[in-house]
Amino acid sequence: MRGSASEPNKPVIVLVRPQLGQNIGKAARAMLNFGLTELRLVSPRDGWPNPDAGPAASGADVVLERAQLFDTVEAAIADCSQVFSSTVRRRDLVMPVLRPEEMADRIAASSAKSAIIFGPERSGLETEEVALASAIVTVPINPKFGSLNLAQAVILLAYEWSRRSALAQPPAKELEPAAPHGELDGLISQLNDELEHKGYFHPPSRTEATKNTLRTIFTKTGWSSREVKAVRGVIRALVGPPRNRR
Amino acid sequence: MRGSASEPNKPVIVLVRPQLGQNIGKAARAMLNFGLTELRLVSPRDGWPNPDAGPAASGADVVLERAQLFDTVEAAIADCSQVFSSTVRRRDLVMPVLRPEEMADRIAASSAKSAIIFGPERSGLETEEVALASAIVTVPINPKFGSLNLAQAVILLAYEWSRRSALAQPPAKELEPAAPHGELDGLISQLNDELEHKGYFHPPSRTEATKNTLRTIFTKTGWSSREVKAVRGVIRALVGPPRNRR
Repeated sequence: MRGSASEPNKPVIVLVRPQLGQNIGKAARAMLNFGLTELRLVSPRDGWPNPDAGPAASGADVVLERAQLFDTVEAAIADCSQVFSSTVRRRDLVMPVLRPEEMADRIAASSAKSAIIFGPERSGLETEEVALASAIVTVPINPKFGSLNLAQAVILLAYEWSRRSALAQPPAKELEPAAPHGELDGLISQLNDELEHKGYFHPPSRTEATKNTLRTIFTKTGWSSREVKAVRGVIRALVGPPRNRR
Repeated sequence: MRGSASEPNKPVIVLVRPQLGQNIGKAARAMLNFGLTELRLVSPRDGWPNPDAGPAASGADVVLERAQLFDTVEAAIADCSQVFSSTVRRRDLVMPVLRPEEMADRIAASSAKSAIIFGPERSGLETEEVALASAIVTVPINPKFGSLNLAQAVILLAYEWSRRSALAQPPAKELEPAAPHGELDGLISQLNDELEHKGYFHPPSRTEATKNTLRTIFTKTGWSSREVKAVRGVIRALVGPPRNRR
């Protein structure tokens, strides 16, 4: 069960027989960028710990230090209720194939512990290993050029999880809101007055249409109060005499 | 303009002063995984072509071969109407800050050419470069561990674009598209010249910041070519002598 409503359900990342320590480090870095910290390794080719992992983790050492080692995929996912195999579609298995956001939805919808398993760099997961999962998750890539490496697959799924879990959180701080309409009206009146003075509206029969066009142009800007003030200052400067300040 | 309704609007990827050829190659690979092919390079540190790029591209050579070289960010985005700066939130600029999916929505909603610009590996984009964009796009990462490298930032935004464009939606009703960036630049230069002449920029130490603020204000308008022309006419009228026409 989740600790609290505000605590998102973080999946475990399981790397199965990873070959290069460097790739384990890059995967750890990818995970921590999106707040995932639980890494499990199944029979890494060169043993564990691996001296190449640390430098590639670029500071995500905490993930490597806490990584747990297992002999089999079954053991690594024994406490997980939802397991997703990151792989391409497998013709030899009849299993649900999810897009990353569908996986993220399923993780977010459940309080059960989840895992995402990734195969070795070259060969990928064995059929029996894929079959241990509840579903396959596949990043939809260019059918004419599919070349995702291990760390890229990890970062895309970690990102998708993070994106989904952020949706449950309060929205980002409000940007500068657009100015109230009255302030925009003030700007438009000032502009019209100055243009009138300069004889811009000509011929008179077109004056209304031109004013409407200008209104549309300045209304669509979405300028904030601060920006409306700045533009009003710009208009004053443009119509005023040159000021020779030093 | 889009070629046809079924052709998604593919953003251009602009790498500004990239340092390592390897990272250019990795970015190309990340792009092609999600079907993006148009790469533009602004003053790559070690020149172009770079022999380290090809091996890192893992087969995405077509992206590297077609990459275009530019001296400035302005030149690289001159034909783009919507420009997004991939960076963290900047306190020195008041600009919209979008999540990747919001950026993807804006690209999908428009038929105008879009670009996403990425800064150098270590230093990131200069303030003036960020200010060229219509909005900042920020991948929401772990506030306690933000360590996305260049290729990872590219792959996440390319993925998000691809995810959004795969939601097969009928194209939005065509509005007047935003003007290409070069036209907006013309307007902003005209305004800066006139304001300079009026002694508006004062004190000199604030000139750059004020210019960046004005750039942001006018970039966010989303004005079309027709509207940019109209505003340029307004500026001419404001600084010109009164014309007494009858």
